[in-house]
Amino acid sequence: MTANTLIGLDWGTSSLRAYLFGPDRNILSQRETASGIQAITDGRFREAFESLCADWINAEPDLPVIACGMIGSRQGWREAPYAQTPAGFDELASALMPIDLLAGRRFCIVPGVSTVGPSGTHDVIRGEETQVVGALERLGLTDATIVLPGTHSKWVSVRNRRLVGFRTYMTGELYAVLARHSILGRLFAEQAAPDGPHQQQAFTDGLQRAFDDPTGLTSLLFSVRAEGLFGCYDGQQMPAYLSGLLLGAEIAHARGTALHPGTNLEPARDAATDSSAPVTLLIGSDTLVTRYAAALERAGIDAIPVPDAPVAEGLLALASSAGLID
Amino acid sequence: MTANTLIGLDWGTSSLRAYLFGPDRNILSQRETASGIQAITDGRFREAFESLCADWINAEPDLPVIACGMIGSRQGWREAPYAQTPAGFDELASALMPIDLLAGRRFCIVPGVSTVGPSGTHDVIRGEETQVVGALERLGLTDATIVLPGTHSKWVSVRNRRLVGFRTYMTGELYAVLARHSILGRLFAEQAAPDGPHQQQAFTDGLQRAFDDPTGLTSLLFSVRAEGLFGCYDGQQMPAYLSGLLLGAEIAHARGTALHPGTNLEPARDAATDSSAPVTLLIGSDTLVTRYAAALERAGIDAIPVPDAPVAEGLLALASSAGLID
Repeated sequence: MTANTLIGLDWGTSSLRAYLFGPDRNILSQRETASGIQAITDGRFREAFESLCADWINAEPDLPVIACGMIGSRQGWREAPYAQTPAGFDELASALMPIDLLAGRRFCIVPGVSTVGPSGTHDVIRGEETQVVGALERLGLTDATIVLPGTHSKWVSVRNRRLVGFRTYMTGELYAVLARHSILGRLFAEQAAPDGPHQQQAFTDGLQRAFDDPTGLTSLLFSVRAEGLFGCYDGQQMPAYLSGLLLGAEIAHARGTALHPGTNLEPARDAATDSSAPVTLLIGSDTLVTRYAAALERAGIDAIPVPDAPVAEGLLALASSAGLID
Repeated sequence: MTANTLIGLDWGTSSLRAYLFGPDRNILSQRETASGIQAITDGRFREAFESLCADWINAEPDLPVIACGMIGSRQGWREAPYAQTPAGFDELASALMPIDLLAGRRFCIVPGVSTVGPSGTHDVIRGEETQVVGALERLGLTDATIVLPGTHSKWVSVRNRRLVGFRTYMTGELYAVLARHSILGRLFAEQAAPDGPHQQQAFTDGLQRAFDDPTGLTSLLFSVRAEGLFGCYDGQQMPAYLSGLLLGAEIAHARGTALHPGTNLEPARDAATDSSAPVTLLIGSDTLVTRYAAALERAGIDAIPVPDAPVAEGLLALASSAGLID
């Protein structure tokens, strides 16, 4: 039997995904558990890893391991300090944080990345940098704007294989806390209907209003309630309307934001006339990617979905660049 | 004994305040209970009113009553339909909704006001219109911009004794749900320290960042967490920083918003050069008024606090204008 190449771990807050890369660097097997770092007590990270990957590591005790995500945060196994923008793919690889707890096994954690935005605020990603590396590797690109929707949406700008800037938007978490805990959520239907034309219209209205009034989010949010009072939307539409407002505010800001001197997040808009504008990629769950693609299209941004989470390719590329594998 | 003039009720979601106006229209007595409409079961509004004001109404069974606030909402005693902007003070008075449940007693509810904003969204106030009437009556003004901070902050524009437009901001509720239910609140100190220079600095930073990046709120919110990660603010400062971001977003939007053709919410900024710009008034609790006054000053708006809730004067003025009292 030819030796396998690598074990890759995507170890986030709420889940742990493991990939086994075969002799040809193909994904031989993958598995997932709910052992995100939030679920680990008493620092038993090693046990969680060995439990999920027992057969792989027993068969090949010296197979190297690379992990990305919140496992490298202060609340994780070992803190892998943030690399700073501009952060080249090779710089990320050279900053892998080794863990020497595992006799004979090379085990490294990918650093997160930090940046300072135009208004002087810090921002951070951890895990998304590996998705970004994987997506650009897969597509053979050196430049792109990558949108990663989620609880905390990230917009990352890559130029010449360097992460030059990014911004986080609390879109998903804002939706969740407003739906569950604010006066707005009380108007929502208890049983959500399938996402039909009725909901689509409300979603599009929300988007357009946020585009038209991009500084007015905290006021537009109240319109969820007021539109309900006047019967403009029913309880099945209000969740979609709220979602449209929040996505619209995110996109309206991100498209116009200079992430870094000389770069911005508005490239795809002028793609027709400016052949040097990098493409916009979209990485996330099918549901979110579908919703964001529709919203971005309405903003004039033609985003390319990247299916099958590219984190595995990112882990492989960083391990290779770091010399962790041959 | 000379007859008293009126009973005025400020009957909101969480409290009921009652005022007894004497023969000279002065406030003879006032009292408050937690019998807001949320606390009333089985529609027992009459009982709640008669319980709080028993001695007043027993002494003068035909003393008229005027009430404002959520008591006139669909969830209240009787719905008093919204007047629409532009709504003159006299129009509000002529639209009082009578309740004839009380034999021999005249009992009227002040209508709320609705408007349609520039982006086509509905907005509503209910109770604030009476505060606004009272404040302008007290100060002898016909024009003003009135800021009413709270769970849902309201900015109301009055020209020639008419409410010409307004906007609601969910500032207070956003703060509460983010502090209690989001990842941001987990970083807050459990015991809040008194509001010292340490917190003031964080508040001012938040304000300024929101002013500098007025479309970026959902991204700036994440900076509460990121600044914490980098030790820029401690758990005592983060609540103030979040508060600054949210107030800053509100003010940045409101000051630049055209509420109605020919009017806007930016009058006081140019008061030095434009003598026709109406004053900005500030109505609310002492804590909120102090915080908003500081924030508005930083935005170049010189706001005048209106102490002692002017709702009582508003109730009296509307009752008088409606002929409910002589």
